[in-house]
Amino acid sequence: MREPDELRALVEQGLEDLVLTPELGGLAEPVRYALSGGGKRIRPTMCLATAEAAGADPVIALPAALALELVHTFSLVHDDLPAMDDDDERRGRPSTHVAYGDGVALLTGDALLAEGLRLALSYADGSIARELLDATLGMIGGQALDITGADIDLAELHRLKTGRLFAASVGLGLHVALVPEDAQAPWRAFGEELGLLFQVVDDVLDGDGYAARLGVDAARVLAADAATRARERLAAIPAETRVLHELVDGLADRTV
Amino acid sequence: MREPDELRALVEQGLEDLVLTPELGGLAEPVRYALSGGGKRIRPTMCLATAEAAGADPVIALPAALALELVHTFSLVHDDLPAMDDDDERRGRPSTHVAYGDGVALLTGDALLAEGLRLALSYADGSIARELLDATLGMIGGQALDITGADIDLAELHRLKTGRLFAASVGLGLHVALVPEDAQAPWRAFGEELGLLFQVVDDVLDGDGYAARLGVDAARVLAADAATRARERLAAIPAETRVLHELVDGLADRTV
Repeated sequence: MREPDELRALVEQGLEDLVLTPELGGLAEPVRYALSGGGKRIRPTMCLATAEAAGADPVIALPAALALELVHTFSLVHDDLPAMDDDDERRGRPSTHVAYGDGVALLTGDALLAEGLRLALSYADGSIARELLDATLGMIGGQALDITGADIDLAELHRLKTGRLFAASVGLGLHVALVPEDAQAPWRAFGEELGLLFQVVDDVLDGDGYAARLGVDAARVLAADAATRARERLAAIPAETRVLHELVDGLADRTV
Repeated sequence: MREPDELRALVEQGLEDLVLTPELGGLAEPVRYALSGGGKRIRPTMCLATAEAAGADPVIALPAALALELVHTFSLVHDDLPAMDDDDERRGRPSTHVAYGDGVALLTGDALLAEGLRLALSYADGSIARELLDATLGMIGGQALDITGADIDLAELHRLKTGRLFAASVGLGLHVALVPEDAQAPWRAFGEELGLLFQVVDDVLDGDGYAARLGVDAARVLAADAATRARERLAAIPAETRVLHELVDGLADRTV
């Protein structure tokens, strides 16, 4: 059983070794810039940990894990554009559009989405790419809610914008580990809790979203409840889930 | 053998009947707006005609054909954005970003790409989605050349930006018709000629690109040569290719 840090290192190495489509030409540089921002790699690490807990060698799950990180990064690059949130910084560095211009950043996001799906399609089992695509479409729907919704349902917004890709992180790990459909339910119930846990903690740290709407204390309670539910769901999975427990603790302990 | 107009009608009907991912919510409207611009539907029609010439019912090729049109439309919506070409009109109507705003248009393009790939993944044969993705990545690389290339190689630019998706229109038709790999070469040689033919004719009509660089007369000669090569490649295919011939004539006769 690999520890979270070992799995994270596997992801970092995989991103470094990633072979991009040669025809992307000069776009390879901004694509690698966007990917090298030093995020927490939570989604791909969760995917690898799920695959290993379900009985697969995490190395086999690496393309699926990287696909999740590329699709996540696509959403960040497009979100940061002036047409969306207009954020000049991302993790202490100039965001992609500040570093390379709006047009290149737009295409960089497009390329990240397409490369991510290409990685998912490297498996013979098409259900991996299908689940990633469905999650991506849900996420895009969530982003649309975010910029157009006057009377936003925060729970629905986050279920789409954050939750779909977190749930897919678990789902892709299950596909790679060949967990039969009829044995996936307890794992998926766990995956459904992760997005909310991540998002509420994030909102508490940033003082927006749930923290702004409910107050920080109430948001902390919501986060603690989400962490409790995630741990309960984990406990219901008939497998060794120690590493997944540690990942949940890491998600929760950012604030609570 | 269905005539080009019948195939085109099949595409229009397929676009009208297209079921979008419910989670896209309010994005469905701009997605349908972008798709309903009344283009010539050349790529999907070429895909259906190829599939039928190769022995398949074109109805079976419809999801692949629609996938090509969605990916093409994704590229138009993003190309029109202020960050790229900043075009306010597309086929006599306000472009998507003018009608719905830059942020929604950005997400609309993202959704079109993802929905297109979802259609391609509706086949059990993953090679359909793989070829579409590779072509999409080449096209994105071509768009990047277009906005960043100081000293542009026009042939390489168009091979990527236009040619890759045209070639895939033929390639996807072959996959759907289950043409074995070792029998695909003459078809693919034909597909490789289509992008240049389309682009040079387009440049003559618009007075830019090849027409601006070589002069209109020289560009006309280039277009006539491309049409001749396409017809020669078609003649080398051991199948009834009358409808494909008509499509080539349609592409060429826009100017010559």
